[in-house]
Amino acid sequence: MTIETISEHRCFGGTQGFYRHASTACAGPMRFSVYRPPQAARGHVPTLFFLAGLTCTEETFMIKAGAQKIAAELGLMLVAPDTSPREPRLPGDDADWDFGQGAGFYLDATQAPWAAHYRMHDYVSRELPEIVAKLFPADPKRFGIFGHSMGGHGALVLGLRHPQRFRSLSAFAPISSPSQVPWGIKAFTQYLGPDRAAWTEWDANALVRKRPYGRPILIDQGLADKFLETQLKPELFEAACKTAGQKLMLRRHEGYDHGYYFIESFIEDHLRHHAAALAG
Amino acid sequence: MTIETISEHRCFGGTQGFYRHASTACAGPMRFSVYRPPQAARGHVPTLFFLAGLTCTEETFMIKAGAQKIAAELGLMLVAPDTSPREPRLPGDDADWDFGQGAGFYLDATQAPWAAHYRMHDYVSRELPEIVAKLFPADPKRFGIFGHSMGGHGALVLGLRHPQRFRSLSAFAPISSPSQVPWGIKAFTQYLGPDRAAWTEWDANALVRKRPYGRPILIDQGLADKFLETQLKPELFEAACKTAGQKLMLRRHEGYDHGYYFIESFIEDHLRHHAAALAG
Repeated sequence: MTIETISEHRCFGGTQGFYRHASTACAGPMRFSVYRPPQAARGHVPTLFFLAGLTCTEETFMIKAGAQKIAAELGLMLVAPDTSPREPRLPGDDADWDFGQGAGFYLDATQAPWAAHYRMHDYVSRELPEIVAKLFPADPKRFGIFGHSMGGHGALVLGLRHPQRFRSLSAFAPISSPSQVPWGIKAFTQYLGPDRAAWTEWDANALVRKRPYGRPILIDQGLADKFLETQLKPELFEAACKTAGQKLMLRRHEGYDHGYYFIESFIEDHLRHHAAALAG
Repeated sequence: MTIETISEHRCFGGTQGFYRHASTACAGPMRFSVYRPPQAARGHVPTLFFLAGLTCTEETFMIKAGAQKIAAELGLMLVAPDTSPREPRLPGDDADWDFGQGAGFYLDATQAPWAAHYRMHDYVSRELPEIVAKLFPADPKRFGIFGHSMGGHGALVLGLRHPQRFRSLSAFAPISSPSQVPWGIKAFTQYLGPDRAAWTEWDANALVRKRPYGRPILIDQGLADKFLETQLKPELFEAACKTAGQKLMLRRHEGYDHGYYFIESFIEDHLRHHAAALAG
């Protein structure tokens, strides 16, 4: 288990780093980023995995979300993987911006040619946490997960499937009912095949009905988000949580859109939500 | 005086906007960005102009610096121009990353073909403040200026040349003695010609000796900055300020480099420096 350092930068008394390694889950090279807060110099710290949205990379959250300031204050480590495998290239992997490269959807594909490499669920839920726990001062008993849009879908699914691994959970504008919206239907059909029975294990709406997360979930959603009514439909997940008895703090924000100016406006609340859940 | 809105985004209760207009100073289209804090909905607010560095645009600071959170708290408006004209294109304007496009150096060029359009000093010191004062809720008696690297040079020069217009001043890793370093010599030779007598009005080191700013100047500099010893040489400006009796708070930071992870780590101190100077 070795990783290559692409770059490291001092940031708020801690270190912002970018890394590359040979992934077994994805059978190819993968990139990820880690922010180590100042407290990580003195011991193992709670660690949050952030999953970014369509077209993003392992850099996007670290550059745009303004999270390091609060993470340094709270003593949280931040980890962000890339949003899909990048190599080897597969036929058609860059034909669309919402499928293939930059659009791994945090699942394990079962359909050719994707099944050989597009295994972001296995990568993010198992391989990357193992790497982080071994090579960084992370406390593996205090892992949390969050994400944005496609990465909000990923965070909800990974949290619901692995509640013991990821002990706190939140999302910004997540695709929380992917089987019912165009982005999810398009991706699931190609990665998982047309049989919708195979989709339910990758759909937060379906998962939460079967096995609630138990602890509270925080979701922020902008009401000027242009994807709100076609792709995000938070009311569907809200209803599922209500049916399942899952506590959900769904906050709707007038005037905010889908981008990182929205995320940075509320990132502090998310980091405090995770820090409180992972305390002690 | 009309401007076109490219996009606007809700951010920390205020508005992050991107705009385009026909500049008279640069005789062509120019872009700039404005962050309006929540307080701007109720009256005219102090306003800071941020000048970015080589290769940057009007977006860089707004995306990467994490400044809006503190600006919203302090009630500061933020304005960031592009770093050079982009149209019309001139021969050789993209031959190098440190000259021409993205490298306007915040001066008024006197040499052909640059003199017709590369007039960033006139643009940033006169035209853009006039636009901002007229079309945004800015208090023109409370303007401050700051910047990074090439934009730190720009902030120092514009502050020293227009101390009544820009009443507070700071910089991150500025090119504060451009006549004595390769980036400045290359740019000044082509924009201003080989006669070094014409350079002194664009060199903060020379300017501060002739007419100090009067009020304190804040500069932050990372000690792991790869340009520190070849291009930045803060000790030269430090000596000039001492000779001139100019108060300078030059803070050297172990381990920090030249990028925005450095800037975001200290942006709050700069905004508070300006807010205090512009108060009342």
